[in-house]
Amino acid sequence: MSSHRTADLGFARLDLDRAARTGTPEVVYAAGKTPAETVACLAALLDGGAPIAFATRVDDPTAAAVLERWADAVVDDAARVVFVGELPEPEGEVLVLSAGTSDGPVAAEVAATLAALGVGCRRVDDVGVAGVHRVLAVSEELARADAVVVVAGMDGALPGVVAGLTDRLVVAVPTSVGYGAAFEGLAPLLTMLTACAPGVVVVNIDNGFGAAVAAAKVVRSQR
Amino acid sequence: MSSHRTADLGFARLDLDRAARTGTPEVVYAAGKTPAETVACLAALLDGGAPIAFATRVDDPTAAAVLERWADAVVDDAARVVFVGELPEPEGEVLVLSAGTSDGPVAAEVAATLAALGVGCRRVDDVGVAGVHRVLAVSEELARADAVVVVAGMDGALPGVVAGLTDRLVVAVPTSVGYGAAFEGLAPLLTMLTACAPGVVVVNIDNGFGAAVAAAKVVRSQR
Amino acid sequence: MSSHRTADLGFARLDLDRAARTGTPEVVYAAGKTPAETVACLAALLDGGAPIAFATRVDDPTAAAVLERWADAVVDDAARVVFVGELPEPEGEVLVLSAGTSDGPVAAEVAATLAALGVGCRRVDDVGVAGVHRVLAVSEELARADAVVVVAGMDGALPGVVAGLTDRLVVAVPTSVGYGAAFEGLAPLLTMLTACAPGVVVVNIDNGFGAAVAAAKVVRSQR
Amino acid sequence: MSSHRTADLGFARLDLDRAARTGTPEVVYAAGKTPAETVACLAALLDGGAPIAFATRVDDPTAAAVLERWADAVVDDAARVVFVGELPEPEGEVLVLSAGTSDGPVAAEVAATLAALGVGCRRVDDVGVAGVHRVLAVSEELARADAVVVVAGMDGALPGVVAGLTDRLVVAVPTSVGYGAAFEGLAPLLTMLTACAPGVVVVNIDNGFGAAVAAAKVVRSQR
Amino acid sequence: MSSHRTADLGFARLDLDRAARTGTPEVVYAAGKTPAETVACLAALLDGGAPIAFATRVDDPTAAAVLERWADAVVDDAARVVFVGELPEPEGEVLVLSAGTSDGPVAAEVAATLAALGVGCRRVDDVGVAGVHRVLAVSEELARADAVVVVAGMDGALPGVVAGLTDRLVVAVPTSVGYGAAFEGLAPLLTMLTACAPGVVVVNIDNGFGAAVAAAKVVRSQR
Amino acid sequence: MSSHRTADLGFARLDLDRAARTGTPEVVYAAGKTPAETVACLAALLDGGAPIAFATRVDDPTAAAVLERWADAVVDDAARVVFVGELPEPEGEVLVLSAGTSDGPVAAEVAATLAALGVGCRRVDDVGVAGVHRVLAVSEELARADAVVVVAGMDGALPGVVAGLTDRLVVAVPTSVGYGAAFEGLAPLLTMLTACAPGVVVVNIDNGFGAAVAAAKVVRSQR
Amino acid sequence: MSSHRTADLGFARLDLDRAARTGTPEVVYAAGKTPAETVACLAALLDGGAPIAFATRVDDPTAAAVLERWADAVVDDAARVVFVGELPEPEGEVLVLSAGTSDGPVAAEVAATLAALGVGCRRVDDVGVAGVHRVLAVSEELARADAVVVVAGMDGALPGVVAGLTDRLVVAVPTSVGYGAAFEGLAPLLTMLTACAPGVVVVNIDNGFGAAVAAAKVVRSQR
Amino acid sequence: MSSHRTADLGFARLDLDRAARTGTPEVVYAAGKTPAETVACLAALLDGGAPIAFATRVDDPTAAAVLERWADAVVDDAARVVFVGELPEPEGEVLVLSAGTSDGPVAAEVAATLAALGVGCRRVDDVGVAGVHRVLAVSEELARADAVVVVAGMDGALPGVVAGLTDRLVVAVPTSVGYGAAFEGLAPLLTMLTACAPGVVVVNIDNGFGAAVAAAKVVRSQR
Repeated sequence: MSSHRTADLGFARLDLDRAARTGTPEVVYAAGKTPAETVACLAALLDGGAPIAFATRVDDPTAAAVLERWADAVVDDAARVVFVGELPEPEGEVLVLSAGTSDGPVAAEVAATLAALGVGCRRVDDVGVAGVHRVLAVSEELARADAVVVVAGMDGALPGVVAGLTDRLVVAVPTSVGYGAAFEGLAPLLTMLTACAPGVVVVNIDNGFGAAVAAAKVVRSQR
Repeated sequence: MSSHRTADLGFARLDLDRAARTGTPEVVYAAGKTPAETVACLAALLDGGAPIAFATRVDDPTAAAVLERWADAVVDDAARVVFVGELPEPEGEVLVLSAGTSDGPVAAEVAATLAALGVGCRRVDDVGVAGVHRVLAVSEELARADAVVVVAGMDGALPGVVAGLTDRLVVAVPTSVGYGAAFEGLAPLLTMLTACAPGVVVVNIDNGFGAAVAAAKVVRSQR
Repeated sequence: MSSHRTADLGFARLDLDRAARTGTPEVVYAAGKTPAETVACLAALLDGGAPIAFATRVDDPTAAAVLERWADAVVDDAARVVFVGELPEPEGEVLVLSAGTSDGPVAAEVAATLAALGVGCRRVDDVGVAGVHRVLAVSEELARADAVVVVAGMDGALPGVVAGLTDRLVVAVPTSVGYGAAFEGLAPLLTMLTACAPGVVVVNIDNGFGAAVAAAKVVRSQR
Repeated sequence: MSSHRTADLGFARLDLDRAARTGTPEVVYAAGKTPAETVACLAALLDGGAPIAFATRVDDPTAAAVLERWADAVVDDAARVVFVGELPEPEGEVLVLSAGTSDGPVAAEVAATLAALGVGCRRVDDVGVAGVHRVLAVSEELARADAVVVVAGMDGALPGVVAGLTDRLVVAVPTSVGYGAAFEGLAPLLTMLTACAPGVVVVNIDNGFGAAVAAAKVVRSQR
Repeated sequence: MSSHRTADLGFARLDLDRAARTGTPEVVYAAGKTPAETVACLAALLDGGAPIAFATRVDDPTAAAVLERWADAVVDDAARVVFVGELPEPEGEVLVLSAGTSDGPVAAEVAATLAALGVGCRRVDDVGVAGVHRVLAVSEELARADAVVVVAGMDGALPGVVAGLTDRLVVAVPTSVGYGAAFEGLAPLLTMLTACAPGVVVVNIDNGFGAAVAAAKVVRSQR
Repeated sequence: MSSHRTADLGFARLDLDRAARTGTPEVVYAAGKTPAETVACLAALLDGGAPIAFATRVDDPTAAAVLERWADAVVDDAARVVFVGELPEPEGEVLVLSAGTSDGPVAAEVAATLAALGVGCRRVDDVGVAGVHRVLAVSEELARADAVVVVAGMDGALPGVVAGLTDRLVVAVPTSVGYGAAFEGLAPLLTMLTACAPGVVVVNIDNGFGAAVAAAKVVRSQR
Repeated sequence: MSSHRTADLGFARLDLDRAARTGTPEVVYAAGKTPAETVACLAALLDGGAPIAFATRVDDPTAAAVLERWADAVVDDAARVVFVGELPEPEGEVLVLSAGTSDGPVAAEVAATLAALGVGCRRVDDVGVAGVHRVLAVSEELARADAVVVVAGMDGALPGVVAGLTDRLVVAVPTSVGYGAAFEGLAPLLTMLTACAPGVVVVNIDNGFGAAVAAAKVVRSQR
Repeated sequence: MSSHRTADLGFARLDLDRAARTGTPEVVYAAGKTPAETVACLAALLDGGAPIAFATRVDDPTAAAVLERWADAVVDDAARVVFVGELPEPEGEVLVLSAGTSDGPVAAEVAATLAALGVGCRRVDDVGVAGVHRVLAVSEELARADAVVVVAGMDGALPGVVAGLTDRLVVAVPTSVGYGAAFEGLAPLLTMLTACAPGVVVVNIDNGFGAAVAAAKVVRSQR
């Protein structure tokens, strides 16, 4: 069946028709791969016909290897993401809120992934519930967004407060930011899963990529 | 501000404008409330102008108390949900899959909540990954749905397989069904959070209500 | 030393001078004691010169046994607390907030303990962060209180929001209310310990008594 | 509202009126920030009118960057805290006890924070319960203090013993000191939460800053 | 080999020479056995030549079945232990301390087991660290004992304080007494394992039997 | 495809060709099903052509309902298993060892499942490592078996000792027998997973059925 | 007894007759040993008469030390395994599937161990359930194999899907690959233990060696 | 009171009369102390009249600093212990068994501590239960010992087997050796706590020092 073409690289078997089947292209998760392996995966995806290929969790040697192969590749340092190819025109708008400055890298991964998927994005950072007026101040942005992604570590209380203020789906991303009883992200993960406001859904700790894919599905289903 | 009207019952302060603000009406969570308290909450919501009021996690005495007060109330035994008032016309369609027959009550809570929110629903039960052809057999339903809710206990592997077959958002609900290393739903919760297919989002263990609200937000954002 | 008098009942050794030493009288924790043992403890405390004696976590048979011995004992059903003797005049005011109606019994234990300790108390229930305007609505009470106790289960997000609105100490009490990933109070416990607003301190799950003692120490240190 | 002024630095939105609202100024948590970001935050707080600004969890490069910008900044090496501006006159006295020499850095963070908040502090270190006479030896200091902070790792038993000897509020800080079954601070955290002496309240593991803020609230509410 | 005689009852294979080999006779753990099975095990042990046989964790029907078979059996209700045969003359003395009245059943199991093993025992109950003078008051008993068993739930802090006051081995027994963050005995277990005073050894939660066996080994090794 | 026939009962979709595909017939897990549902499932399997159908985790009402429908059904009380149809002739031999008498029900489930699968079985119970000669005494049985299943709760040490004595595959089943730090089977589960003797494989806590299926696969692969 | 010869190296006592007794030779686990110790162990095994000796978890200095001693040793870099001596002729075939490229080192340890044990092996990598057609594509290999080893991190869902497609025993190996809620391999471990398809057995996280030994026992029992 | 002399070093308050009070001298736990602090503590103990002073968990710089101050200090590299002063004549004999070569450092800490306490010690290493004949081979040593210490990581099964073979007290030390489901020593800790043979007592993970102190108490109580 044509929707199940695979590129077999020996160390990896890439799913070339994932975009056709699931709406989201195969993406290279670079953690645990050598720079050469990541480059080979990106190349195979482009060879398979993808207009843009990208990798997440990219370290410096991998970013260098990608730039050496494709001089016009784009490296997003904050997000640890690289793109090869042309970014699509953005459609719609996802509001990306983060609770603290240390949550920045995960919020950046959300934004970079949305860009690669062709979805518009507006970021507002450092919106902690300890100053709840900072949350109320984004009401206007909430009203305008197609979906909302909320990134928070430590107590992870922000998504529950936001979900009480909007009729949009709130995708919550716990982060491993914090210390002690935050237990590497377990505390905000549990907080988000038990948030009292319905309409909060949760992805894995630090999984900005997954949150962006989910939000993009919501945006695209509206068009 | 008119969107913040509250009904103060002493033991509870109901948020009468939640539907206006978040698109989802205030719903009565009956666990931990006496039958009289649940009845009082439902009455206050109807008095506040809601066309329909409903409660989840309803036990038998509470169901009886509701029926005594409103003879035309509808009790959904499988879902442990009661409705008072007129169900809205359903719009759109959410596909609700469950992995085993024991996951039925949670899947029923999803379906009942969707009905109360005015969203269409199609259920297919007992779609376990141990017989993966049963999953492939729902491809057609997947293609037609506006969003997908997948309910699974034990290993919780079904949402990840489903998400690889569809471009719809997959809302995963772990259940407390299982024994031993399922640890009251912890095992499927972790499985769903780490699912390799992007586009899976997760709600609390046994939280069929929350999954339905999330799916309804996706459906309604398309209209 | 006179401040270390003990009443030895065989099964228990009561600390008669605890009030002199720590400002808080010895209190009978009735869980795990027979009705007769609880009655014996209360009697020994009164015999030791206490103007009032009280017990927490009292079940129905114990309450009955206390009433049989002291016809003028006061039983607080919601709090599962009994008092024998004269309640002191209340001084100061502690604001007791609870997040949901199911948190009521713990909030009642806070209030009953404050009464026994001679501290004034004002309760506001069902102040969930899912409707953050309900939190903002208590600003005036916050400004007037000498200390604040916040009782919350599920996500436990309320104390962190409250602490951002007041200069009073916030004593947070996680409750075992909730299901699934609330894990019998673990989720709100972690949330409260990692709350981003400084000035939040935490006691054991469902420990309304301990929170009241802490708040009373703050109030009394001001007089 | 004037009490909600914010300094928006792009990567951070500082709450300039937190002191007015909560009695505690916004403080810079330097972990996870670059030296330049920490310097920018401190500068913004001083620009906003704060007489003193300080940062916690400061590493060597950040301390150097602060000293380069403000030659008269004070760096507390043991506490990993930096101050810029004039320390206020201390009022009242908080007794800070630590159980072992390895708990020193956390006790130092308590002391430094109290200094910045204008609260007096007396420290006694290495007061372990394995030699309970060392605890009894601080009775006099306990009687004189306005509040007590107890810092302990490993078994975390000290706060419960201290709380039985004083009528002051005891703020307990578990530390990540220890090995094996101490599980990075989990053991002392649980010990402190379940301490049998009422009047013990707990903050996050290693959170000397939070304990100091809580103790300062108690001291200041007395004046 | 004569030291490995076994009584095969079909559902159980009793180790008749355990006393000869390990100094401790095979003992019947009645939990999970029917009354008839427990009776059969006791009979087989007596048939095998044991002067006394006993069972722990005995419920009411089992106690009744034992009494029906051996009218002169002794049932210790507090300890849930039954003895058949003649108790040996006690030698030596183990001091058994318990922290609270709710720890009584476990302390009773320690005492009953010591009696069956022919070891003397002195119990002092309700010796909590919240009144540390109650601990100091047992100094004389500590000096006289051959070994010490300390039973404690909740924070489990007592063994560490006791071990700082004696040169005897301290066998610590955490109990499942407590609520919330005591997590069914996990909190005192961790506290005891991390106690700062060396010379504390730990047995399983609620395992009064095992603590008694360990203490008896110490006493007997001295004779 | 003929190997994917399904019997759709509404509440369940039975996999009629599982035996053809995986060598193990679809089996009814009765926990969480009503008696009527279990009966309907068994009937559908027999209608689908299976010579024998069976259900595990059967309670008394379900057993009664099965006997009412099929008078010649066989109910194994110890194992909580029912069979309808003719048991196949047993081939090969699996040795089933259990560590204590309380592990009996799980060992019985192993034996009953083997019988239904047509595999021979020899059981030896109460083979605890506390009397290691009892383990050595089964050497002859170990030498004769085609595969070994070891059932153990509490410390779960038996499979590792057995695996050092045989060249057969050892399938280890942790049980929820025990108390305290056994944590409902977690302790033996971890012990078995970390057993130092290679050749130990592990199934879920109390999963006698799964262990029998695994052992049967080994036996049948030899024929 | 001749089957219990031991080589005592002081720091280690090698079991020279393990192969005779258990079918699997003693193997050197190099983690935690110095290079010299690993070399000494390998030499002792060869001196004891083993035709081949090998070590797992070998770091670079150890590999160098082995090559210095035996110039013809074989170092498998991917698997971190070294062999000294002649590899036996392979018999039978184990199919080794891995779910992602990052699981490669563990799959390589499986393959290297099988080679040393004289068992044939066929590897297919990157067979994730997110593209379930990639799983179905190995049906032919599944039919041909004598046993199957499945290596997977993250959600660990692959073994359950595979077990539904084959009548062979499936040995599942969870890996520590993943982040966040994968909790260092806990998530896939729980998933595999609760897999709904019977016939899945599990070994320790990252324990490719143990899985290979188990699979080899199945293969050899067929010959 | 003379038995409560303290040496106050500012950063530490040493308990000079601990030996008189508890039979065990104050010992310096060097982890978390600077080399200078450890040297100062040792000097203070010697100044206080101790014939020998020692420190555990010593790193290389600390060992060097000690040797610089006292040229005749003894450094035990394997145990990471340093001694200053004269070792006492050993009395009695403790048998120290370890399960694997990687457990060596902890066993060495046991031995070094026993030497410093004046207790004789015999070590036998690498006595794993996977070759149970290696355990039976130490029967003679078991019969001769005054007490037994068993050190084991991974599955931690050795102490339970040993306790079934001796009438001596068995002090079990779990180690953090192992990987995966050993969870840094949690697995052997739980195994030891739930060991079926009575007479096993447990200390903290890797706490060789504490086990030696406990064993020494048993030996000395016999003299």
